[in-house]
Amino acid sequence: MGKIYVIGIGPGNKENMTFRAYKAMEDSDIIVGHKTYINLVEDLFVGKETFRSAMKKEIERCQETLNFAKNGKTVALISSGDAGVYGMAGIMLEVAADSGIEVEVIPGVTSANASAAVVGAPVMHDHATISLSDLLTDWDLITKRIKLASEGDFIISYYNPKSFGRQTQIVEAWEIMLKYKKKDTLVAIVRNTGREGQEYELTTLENMLEHEINMFTTVIVGNSKTFIKGGKMITPRGYKV
Amino acid sequence: MGKIYVIGIGPGNKENMTFRAYKAMEDSDIIVGHKTYINLVEDLFVGKETFRSAMKKEIERCQETLNFAKNGKTVALISSGDAGVYGMAGIMLEVAADSGIEVEVIPGVTSANASAAVVGAPVMHDHATISLSDLLTDWDLITKRIKLASEGDFIISYYNPKSFGRQTQIVEAWEIMLKYKKKDTLVAIVRNTGREGQEYELTTLENMLEHEINMFTTVIVGNSKTFIKGGKMITPRGYKV
Repeated sequence: MGKIYVIGIGPGNKENMTFRAYKAMEDSDIIVGHKTYINLVEDLFVGKETFRSAMKKEIERCQETLNFAKNGKTVALISSGDAGVYGMAGIMLEVAADSGIEVEVIPGVTSANASAAVVGAPVMHDHATISLSDLLTDWDLITKRIKLASEGDFIISYYNPKSFGRQTQIVEAWEIMLKYKKKDTLVAIVRNTGREGQEYELTTLENMLEHEINMFTTVIVGNSKTFIKGGKMITPRGYKV
Repeated sequence: MGKIYVIGIGPGNKENMTFRAYKAMEDSDIIVGHKTYINLVEDLFVGKETFRSAMKKEIERCQETLNFAKNGKTVALISSGDAGVYGMAGIMLEVAADSGIEVEVIPGVTSANASAAVVGAPVMHDHATISLSDLLTDWDLITKRIKLASEGDFIISYYNPKSFGRQTQIVEAWEIMLKYKKKDTLVAIVRNTGREGQEYELTTLENMLEHEINMFTTVIVGNSKTFIKGGKMITPRGYKV
């Protein structure tokens, strides 16, 4: 019997990948993933078998992965960022649970942390990550979480803020935040973190919707103490500098 | 003039470090950090100058780092996990802001994500990270955040749950959570993640305090949907498997 590695490859290029993630791909017979991620890694493993699975077909992707493993292969199932954060780890473990096939989850640098490093250190204190995708989660629960995280003065990172089919969620999130966070709260908008085309803007809650937010964007909203110094967005821990 | 890298080395051993973190240390003239972290990396860079700075002297550590850079050195200031998550990134940026010295933050795999991978995939959905250290943050604000995160059915990861001098905070956090989360909510207690002596227990909110929680522990409390299957702790995203 084979084995499955579920691997977070980090935000994209090899340099943000861990040695463990790289080695697991190297040791695998086949690398499985959505084509975007296969494209990011295939140059590193020339000659290695790959399998590009379809977008939004997550269960099928896990079943394909499991089938490769049942046929004796060591399989690397890859996600960007950390596979355990809105990624493939949970569903792969669930699909493989009764198969007798070993599944090892290999963590990676998640988008909120990688994006934070691009703009400075905005995620230094208590922090909530919220996905704005309501495909699988009730929108009422998501808005409740936005409200409570804002009320608690958490730093908030938004995953999946917008897609072609979902344009209004970020606007509604913004309206909720404005009720609890000051309008001059700092916001970082980071696009294509760790990939070609990486760029960012530092703005305020009031003005954040004036900036481009798309599928490849992470939005990080500071807490009430977050400031900008030397061009960097910093949330203090409380040291007296 | 020199340059400063603030580096998250991941949970400890080389395999969970990124290529970028490794290369930045390799390219540096000196590695600065608390002795625990220097001990973790010095075997990788035999002959490299190191500087062990004292525990709890974070501002001094940044000033020492800045002084090395002012003397023309490229300096690697290292933290475990991600330096931008309760680490050295924010304070280093603040201390160096007016110096003209460039500071680059290099992200790493943070403890919540690395610990999650050890037990399965508990952090697959909306997630709050809270530090229980009240040295620099009012305890009232911390308890407010615990309450709100619990009310919002967030997965919650606790950093700094306990130390020699702080024993009661985790008990109070537990009492607050029990008011909003069911007592059979699943909890992972992970010690020494990614290091020698890594071990974990899966338990419930009701029973979590029966397990050893110390300075090297991450506590991950699931949401209302978190389950155990095949020995793994999994928070579902909502796919129908």
